[in-house]
Amino acid sequence: MENIAELAARAQGLDGVIPLWYGEGDLVTPPFVRDAAVAALAAGRTFYVPDMRGNAELVAALSAYQTRLHGRRIGPERSTVTPGGMQSVLLAMALVCDLGTNIVYLEPQWPNIHNCIHLAGGEPRPVPMGLDDRGWRLDLDRLFARCDARTRAIMFSSPANPHGWTATPEELAALLAFSRERGIWLIADEVYARLYWEADAAPSLLQVAEADDLVLCVNSFSKAWAMTGFRVGWLNHPGAVSKQVGALTQYMNSGTADFIQVAAAAALNEGEDFARMMRERCRSGLLQAYARLGENPAVRLPPMPPGGMYVFFRIDGQANSRAACLDVLERARVGLAPGALFGATASAYLRMCVARDPAQLATALDRMAALT
Amino acid sequence: MENIAELAARAQGLDGVIPLWYGEGDLVTPPFVRDAAVAALAAGRTFYVPDMRGNAELVAALSAYQTRLHGRRIGPERSTVTPGGMQSVLLAMALVCDLGTNIVYLEPQWPNIHNCIHLAGGEPRPVPMGLDDRGWRLDLDRLFARCDARTRAIMFSSPANPHGWTATPEELAALLAFSRERGIWLIADEVYARLYWEADAAPSLLQVAEADDLVLCVNSFSKAWAMTGFRVGWLNHPGAVSKQVGALTQYMNSGTADFIQVAAAAALNEGEDFARMMRERCRSGLLQAYARLGENPAVRLPPMPPGGMYVFFRIDGQANSRAACLDVLERARVGLAPGALFGATASAYLRMCVARDPAQLATALDRMAALT
Repeated sequence: MENIAELAARAQGLDGVIPLWYGEGDLVTPPFVRDAAVAALAAGRTFYVPDMRGNAELVAALSAYQTRLHGRRIGPERSTVTPGGMQSVLLAMALVCDLGTNIVYLEPQWPNIHNCIHLAGGEPRPVPMGLDDRGWRLDLDRLFARCDARTRAIMFSSPANPHGWTATPEELAALLAFSRERGIWLIADEVYARLYWEADAAPSLLQVAEADDLVLCVNSFSKAWAMTGFRVGWLNHPGAVSKQVGALTQYMNSGTADFIQVAAAAALNEGEDFARMMRERCRSGLLQAYARLGENPAVRLPPMPPGGMYVFFRIDGQANSRAACLDVLERARVGLAPGALFGATASAYLRMCVARDPAQLATALDRMAALT
Repeated sequence: MENIAELAARAQGLDGVIPLWYGEGDLVTPPFVRDAAVAALAAGRTFYVPDMRGNAELVAALSAYQTRLHGRRIGPERSTVTPGGMQSVLLAMALVCDLGTNIVYLEPQWPNIHNCIHLAGGEPRPVPMGLDDRGWRLDLDRLFARCDARTRAIMFSSPANPHGWTATPEELAALLAFSRERGIWLIADEVYARLYWEADAAPSLLQVAEADDLVLCVNSFSKAWAMTGFRVGWLNHPGAVSKQVGALTQYMNSGTADFIQVAAAAALNEGEDFARMMRERCRSGLLQAYARLGENPAVRLPPMPPGGMYVFFRIDGQANSRAACLDVLERARVGLAPGALFGATASAYLRMCVARDPAQLATALDRMAALT
């Protein structure tokens, strides 16, 4: 079993598996978003979008949304639409990577990051995060010490996949100061930005960076608006590189479907209530999981994270997360993602997505409790 | 003016421009295809597709369609769905390219190919095609002579963009023999395969290759089913590399939208009449353009090509296609693509898309006739 897809294939022979392994909730994309796509299809919007960086509505909506959310003007020249957050990562890596360069990133980390750096020709250079009784911790000195003359970017996700750690404004300011001093890009994966309990959005580099700072933010409509199946995201970048981003967009995907962009604009313009509901669903799912898992003395739970959609925990005596996932799948019929995929730091951990119906989550937690 | 997009931007200040520069017709995607997407959206198909290489319907439809079209079994393990033909090219290049390797390709060629090879880290190595009174000609000896120990693939489009040249079965057999002898991949861009006058599809490598030959075929739903705005295509590859293609798909785009794949399957399963209508529209547009342009003694027209959606011509005394396009745009309000974009061989040529309403095409041709 090498990744979640292979675990999922294994599950096809099993009845009643509750799939909590993907970073995807159980809600269908809301009707107002689907309706916008349907209306655009009915209106015959089935042609190329002349500006491959995004159609007029979505580029304007992204600028207005981000300006509103971050309290700082983010002009339309700073966002480029992509066919999904994964392609935003690839676009970012293609912008900054060459053979012989490296990308320093925080680990545990979504494994696609490591592989995408490889694909773009760079050397993936993980820096382990620490875990203490306050939760996962960023050691800035350790991070900076891993950067050398060939480092093109520091990459991190915040709120983090898998464990929900979220960079503080002070940490973001320190990262930005280092970036300015050394000419090293910062790449922040902010796809979980709206799933943050203390404010409408997690602290973002976009709040502290100037328009020309070396900052790239990966984002997606998938998590906050239940749009994983729409495959649409965006990348924030300095306006000064928008021409290069446009050229890369042309040679990578030649743009994103117009009617999907119309739906994405609807999510931004009319989707605040839905995004807040999603946040509450994740937060209460996390509380529910923490309460139930916390009853089991063998379960090691870090403090509840400030955001994200995952519980990231381990079980005493189970150091091999791949074996543990297989065991939970086969005996409890619950699908978890093995921490080993996220790096050596997390090899004993298990990731559980909580963006689900509370009754289903309760069933999953009950079945897992019965294992021990 | 460096590309069509910039020419199009220039046109925004002009009234009544007839845009014949893109490889896109004027027909909205047919209702049965749009309806399939709408039905899938209504059914709540807005989640990740577990197998990122394609959903069950589309993978099955691709196998059945290609097996039917080419008279030879093409199993489901040999097709991977992409968010558009451009990404199929990137996927192909990412599979075969490394820094220090080269891709030999026929020129004139769609400029995105050159740029995509660069993006993937390879050296783009054009081989000019010749033009004689029979049309554009492939010189196999010249092509093979450009291949060396670092050549990873030979790339060509057939029917070709921009000029409609189409490889014969004998040429395909010779290419395949060379590939087998030297271990060099063949990458065929077959997105215009259905726009071919002499048969239901142009001769294809898929008709002559065995399942394990080093053959990659780029394809798309854009041209035959008027689906440019759906951004969906596929890549044919040996079944032996399907696991690698699946991994690359995960790190490049993490799959294509499920409801778009449902629409694409409808195009394959119910779209033969539409594809034949598109072929007839292109063929009659080409005949119409050849007849009208042929009245002008200053226009140099190669023999009518066997397929494609373009007239590729030059005008005596106008060696600079960029200047000529700007002139035609500003004085005739007709948008053409400059041949210079397609390589030095074609720097005097102009590309005109003919997949249009005959009356609009007549207006464009009349306006251009009035120029000289």
